[in-house]
Amino acid sequence: MHTNLKRTLANECMKKVGETVKVQGWVKKVRHLGNISFLVIRERTGELQCVLEGELAGVIIETESVIEAIGEVVSTNKTGLGIELLLKSVKVINKNSLLPFEVNKKEVNTGLENLLNHRVLSLRHEKIASIFKIKSTLEEAFREYLTNMGFIRIFTPKIVSQGAEGGANVFKLNYFGKEAFLAQSPQFYKQMMVASGLERVFEMGPVFRAEEHNSSRHLNEYISLDLEMAFIEDYEELMVLETEVIKFMFEKVKEKNENELKLLKIEVPTITDIPKLTLYEARELLKKCYKKEMPEGDLNTEGEKLIANYIKETTGSEFVFITEYPKENRPMYTMPAENGLTKSFDLLFKGLEITSGGERIHEYEMLVASFREQGLNEENFQNYLNTFKYGVPPHGGFAIGLERLTAKLLGLTNVREASAFPRDINRLTP
Amino acid sequence: MHTNLKRTLANECMKKVGETVKVQGWVKKVRHLGNISFLVIRERTGELQCVLEGELAGVIIETESVIEAIGEVVSTNKTGLGIELLLKSVKVINKNSLLPFEVNKKEVNTGLENLLNHRVLSLRHEKIASIFKIKSTLEEAFREYLTNMGFIRIFTPKIVSQGAEGGANVFKLNYFGKEAFLAQSPQFYKQMMVASGLERVFEMGPVFRAEEHNSSRHLNEYISLDLEMAFIEDYEELMVLETEVIKFMFEKVKEKNENELKLLKIEVPTITDIPKLTLYEARELLKKCYKKEMPEGDLNTEGEKLIANYIKETTGSEFVFITEYPKENRPMYTMPAENGLTKSFDLLFKGLEITSGGERIHEYEMLVASFREQGLNEENFQNYLNTFKYGVPPHGGFAIGLERLTAKLLGLTNVREASAFPRDINRLTP
Repeated sequence: MHTNLKRTLANECMKKVGETVKVQGWVKKVRHLGNISFLVIRERTGELQCVLEGELAGVIIETESVIEAIGEVVSTNKTGLGIELLLKSVKVINKNSLLPFEVNKKEVNTGLENLLNHRVLSLRHEKIASIFKIKSTLEEAFREYLTNMGFIRIFTPKIVSQGAEGGANVFKLNYFGKEAFLAQSPQFYKQMMVASGLERVFEMGPVFRAEEHNSSRHLNEYISLDLEMAFIEDYEELMVLETEVIKFMFEKVKEKNENELKLLKIEVPTITDIPKLTLYEARELLKKCYKKEMPEGDLNTEGEKLIANYIKETTGSEFVFITEYPKENRPMYTMPAENGLTKSFDLLFKGLEITSGGERIHEYEMLVASFREQGLNEENFQNYLNTFKYGVPPHGGFAIGLERLTAKLLGLTNVREASAFPRDINRLTP
Repeated sequence: MHTNLKRTLANECMKKVGETVKVQGWVKKVRHLGNISFLVIRERTGELQCVLEGELAGVIIETESVIEAIGEVVSTNKTGLGIELLLKSVKVINKNSLLPFEVNKKEVNTGLENLLNHRVLSLRHEKIASIFKIKSTLEEAFREYLTNMGFIRIFTPKIVSQGAEGGANVFKLNYFGKEAFLAQSPQFYKQMMVASGLERVFEMGPVFRAEEHNSSRHLNEYISLDLEMAFIEDYEELMVLETEVIKFMFEKVKEKNENELKLLKIEVPTITDIPKLTLYEARELLKKCYKKEMPEGDLNTEGEKLIANYIKETTGSEFVFITEYPKENRPMYTMPAENGLTKSFDLLFKGLEITSGGERIHEYEMLVASFREQGLNEENFQNYLNTFKYGVPPHGGFAIGLERLTAKLLGLTNVREASAFPRDINRLTP
């Protein structure tokens, strides 16, 4: 009976009162009340209450099993949707075994490690699934904004003959007998694509850092939202662009993920203008107001948090740009400014660095000198350096860590929560 | 003078006749004709002819240098755009050195290896840049279509504890003292995300194959456009979906890359319905019409080409689905059909396989049996296999090789031409 029915989605049932529909999904809850039972089906568009009467009321189904149910859509004032399904038949498509933890409570009551060990199950909790729906929107909005601004999406290799910044923290691999590395960033390649005449390029892809950190802020593999653009007049332009990009990304989340935001009780900050402090100003402020000494040429985690609080209190902004880092603390391709400083910036969001960026050196001689100054052997970087012999325009760019941005936006305390299958020093599975 | 002028793009100059503008770009050509010189600037929106008179006529600039020029836009009937720039000043921003080959001819007259060794330069040729603009559109359209169909963009790890299909052809790496691999495909993870309740997921990301092939069809790192969906009734649905996806991708290219297609002299095929042949039918046809014997349970390269020609001649289609491969020749997660066959398909485009797909096994016991049958140790796949204990719906999916699709669409003879920085058995740079 009804075998030719097509699947109706939960969010389409409201329009089908009085009709017989077929629905498919996971069993979230079953309640037996004598001659009547209630069953809640969960699928990608929402949840649906089903009523089982008579013989059907006795049916026993494990929660989290996959079922197919056929029934009549009837009006009710007992559910949020204003409808429920009066079942005519129910069929188990795939049975669930015993669960390692309960996924159908209001909150997932298990530790992060257990949650990550059983990602397939924890993602069934709508709050956890919401994180990844919002992450998807953020990345899509990054792309949409840049495409509208004349940027081209590029694909750069992840197996490379040199780690992007040279030196430590790279994963090594054997590439048909040659030593190779996993790309720490698409930095060199995005600059090369700018120099090739594409001028404005972006990439959203995995980057790999063999850092032995084990903190709530670090992942050994994460998604970097990278862009690079030619013919900038000043690195200020990059900060203006980043402000606009993030503004657009947040607006898209508000627009597309209203339900998820409500569920997570998150208010997306409205961005107008992002305050800027030079690193010098930030350090002076920490000394003066908080009696804190920072490590040479940088801020530490505590300093970043204090600055963020200060800016939030004095301006209302959740974001702050820190600019003009000293040469010694920036990569060798960074454009120098006066007094040993550079045309560079970091962006902090709720006290966490989510972006590094800046203008890059575009002249061959200056670049080679900078490599030497940092003690790097230019022979190892010939492919990159040769680019600069062939007419490279002034340019710059930045990269946003997608998991960090997602985590901070959603108030997650650990960046791993924003990665479906995180990789850290102890975790290589699932 | 004019230092406050903002950059005007080449394609904006038509609207500025009579005005003084500042343009920036690369010098494509310089011609000296006594008291007058002509210089063509190339940038991301097009090319612009500039006229240099009087003192300026004597200026010497290497082609491919980056310049900034200020001049008046004047009407002319001597250029395609109907305008040219009467220069008032020209400044070299970054000088070019001697080029290893000439990039400003109508065709790039150098071999593929030289072209790949000097990607930054070869990409300056507008025909070569066009390939990557079209590739970007194809990927964007894939995403757009699926987002509209309720799919969620996922991010799965590239460092994994098991190669997707198990066995050979994986790159190994040392992950903090543990053995790890680069993902050959996101197969296991996309299935896990389907099972998590997201139901419909896609990913565009790098995949890694340590295959020792050295052919015009293989890359050791390429971009895979992957999708997976739950609650399919039949694997036919996947072929319908793929037909619609590719149709949409091609329409987007026609819409967004009109100029590039014209330049490359490419006509994008119009897709209506894609013919299907079972593998058995294809093999019989090759025997009967071409007297060709194929290897057991498959087609070889020659067979694929002959079938493609046959289908093109008899139906006009550039595409053909080959279905029902035998169990032995498909991965262990493939849903079996009757008589030792499977619910699987390949898609050929102009005689080249660009997709593999099919329905997957969704029941735990059946899947474990299938792993054993193929001689695999299920203990190595516990994380994946455990998923199937917790209620997995019927599902399936497919993956499109982006470089292969791009190459075939644009008539490129080698798939490396569709990769900016290809990785092959001999190539790890640039």
